[in-house]
Amino acid sequence: MPEYTAEKRSIAVVGATGAVGAEVLSILQQRGCTPDQIRCYGSERSAGNFIPYGGSELTVHPLEQITADPPDFALLCADATTARRVLAMMGDAKSVLIDNSSAFRMESDVPLVIPEVNGETVVGSSRLIANPNCSTIMLVRAIDPLKRAFGLRGITVTTYQAVSGAGRAGIDELYEQTSAAIDGRTVEPSVFPVTCAFNVFEHESEIDPESGFNGEETKMVLETRRILASPDLPVLPTCVRVPVERAHAQSVIVDLDRAVTVEMVRETLVAGGVALCPAGSVLTPRLAAGKEDVVVGRVRLDPSSDGNRVLLWICCDQIRKGAAMNAVQLMDLSESRGR
Amino acid sequence: MPEYTAEKRSIAVVGATGAVGAEVLSILQQRGCTPDQIRCYGSERSAGNFIPYGGSELTVHPLEQITADPPDFALLCADATTARRVLAMMGDAKSVLIDNSSAFRMESDVPLVIPEVNGETVVGSSRLIANPNCSTIMLVRAIDPLKRAFGLRGITVTTYQAVSGAGRAGIDELYEQTSAAIDGRTVEPSVFPVTCAFNVFEHESEIDPESGFNGEETKMVLETRRILASPDLPVLPTCVRVPVERAHAQSVIVDLDRAVTVEMVRETLVAGGVALCPAGSVLTPRLAAGKEDVVVGRVRLDPSSDGNRVLLWICCDQIRKGAAMNAVQLMDLSESRGR
Repeated sequence: MPEYTAEKRSIAVVGATGAVGAEVLSILQQRGCTPDQIRCYGSERSAGNFIPYGGSELTVHPLEQITADPPDFALLCADATTARRVLAMMGDAKSVLIDNSSAFRMESDVPLVIPEVNGETVVGSSRLIANPNCSTIMLVRAIDPLKRAFGLRGITVTTYQAVSGAGRAGIDELYEQTSAAIDGRTVEPSVFPVTCAFNVFEHESEIDPESGFNGEETKMVLETRRILASPDLPVLPTCVRVPVERAHAQSVIVDLDRAVTVEMVRETLVAGGVALCPAGSVLTPRLAAGKEDVVVGRVRLDPSSDGNRVLLWICCDQIRKGAAMNAVQLMDLSESRGR
Repeated sequence: MPEYTAEKRSIAVVGATGAVGAEVLSILQQRGCTPDQIRCYGSERSAGNFIPYGGSELTVHPLEQITADPPDFALLCADATTARRVLAMMGDAKSVLIDNSSAFRMESDVPLVIPEVNGETVVGSSRLIANPNCSTIMLVRAIDPLKRAFGLRGITVTTYQAVSGAGRAGIDELYEQTSAAIDGRTVEPSVFPVTCAFNVFEHESEIDPESGFNGEETKMVLETRRILASPDLPVLPTCVRVPVERAHAQSVIVDLDRAVTVEMVRETLVAGGVALCPAGSVLTPRLAAGKEDVVVGRVRLDPSSDGNRVLLWICCDQIRKGAAMNAVQLMDLSESRGR
């Protein structure tokens, strides 16, 4: 792991007041990044605010000012529109942009990267690197070791996604609606199309009228295929929100090329750097929240298969590992490639 | 639908103070059953309590007294131990027992019945009829029309199960823990193995160490095969609790014998008496709560299949249709067979 304090790389965090931005700052602080290395940028509304950082605090600057002092790395923790705007603003600056939005993920000349899976696609000249969708990161991170060991025929995934995937506003809506429901009041939905308190519902992204898949599902199909370099891989997602603040869960079916045992799967996951839930513990989003691991709980075989169909229960803090940590890892990776 | 007031059949409700018992009483009241037709039975703890019923009220009698005046029908809304006890107590009485527990579901001489699916297995001499597991009822009720029309190769189901599946105690635990979490306090889990507030977790039933399947999943496999008279049907369930009070949701993949279109599926479901969520509405457990329908929302085709793999999103009030209503329907069915 690169030594931040020694390198003194300069880092811009765009969207520093959002859920992912806050998590990026938390990781940078843990890694010993000093306040003078970091500049925070935000919307007009949040510019001028201060963000606590260790014993110090960081000022949120208006986004326009990013061109005045181009950073070594710009970690974009904002929406696709903002990401496109920053790219246009940066022009010929030598900054490396690491983008959390969906703006560039499917552009063939932009690497879409989970460091542990396809880190080799980041090269020294990469000036723009896309961070995958959080649901895709946890899924592909867990499955990749199985693909390498046993060959992959297809993935079926059903999600239990935390409201924080919709940012701080999603978290606020969950708690406001839940408090109201307990008091016998009603708070109308605003972030989500329906009440999220004590309810589950299909992901709020737009539904493709042709296929019936929502945007989150389409992202998971396309990004998974791209990261795994398997353009025709069958990927069948169903994306659902649940009233959980933080950390996603996924019920996953993996079709492999050859028969395996539960023990083979567990050993392969561990060897591949995927965490296993300790025996006797029940793996839940609460357990995974705040952690940097993708964690696999239950591992089963489909008794109706030829031993090549594996069921996994996966939990991951989608803000930390699924977004912020992946972005910071990409920064390290870019550095190591001789940016 | 039989006219209750005319028939004046006598009905015992065993476990009348529980979640399913209360729902049975609500249905009987809506159907015009008079208080004198109904006798409520409960545990020693609840005996002597009164239950409001229309403008009147019903007394909860100790279970031992059921033999003094055997009813035409005994609707058993209690656990498997109680069900076995009642069966033993009733001896040669002509009462028809309709049991909601898992006690007799896999006994070959006891019909396991969803009236709309395999009602023909109830005959006039049936003295004991088993009500399937609530998750099985909603799943099989929705899929049966597709099986009849297109042939069925297999079912994969991932559940989002309400805490009320664990009875009133489950509901209480959800609200107590949620209130505590909002206030920054912690209430230790007691009904469930882990915190249910703002969390999701694998179903709390016992896990088979051999297969890794939990008890709920095993029930769904065995009961589905039995009801559909398909002893080798591949059924692959993953059962998960979500912090929802009432109504289960299921994400289902149905493998059919032949290719279909979304329109064919929707028409077949409607013709088979399954409700479709109105276009423009988002189907959620909240929307299905209190209703008597099994409701199907999203219908998609797997683009990687030959058009014979259908994805459904199903919601159903598992206490009402998934338990109480099915039991009342079984009573009607038994009556119509010339009990």
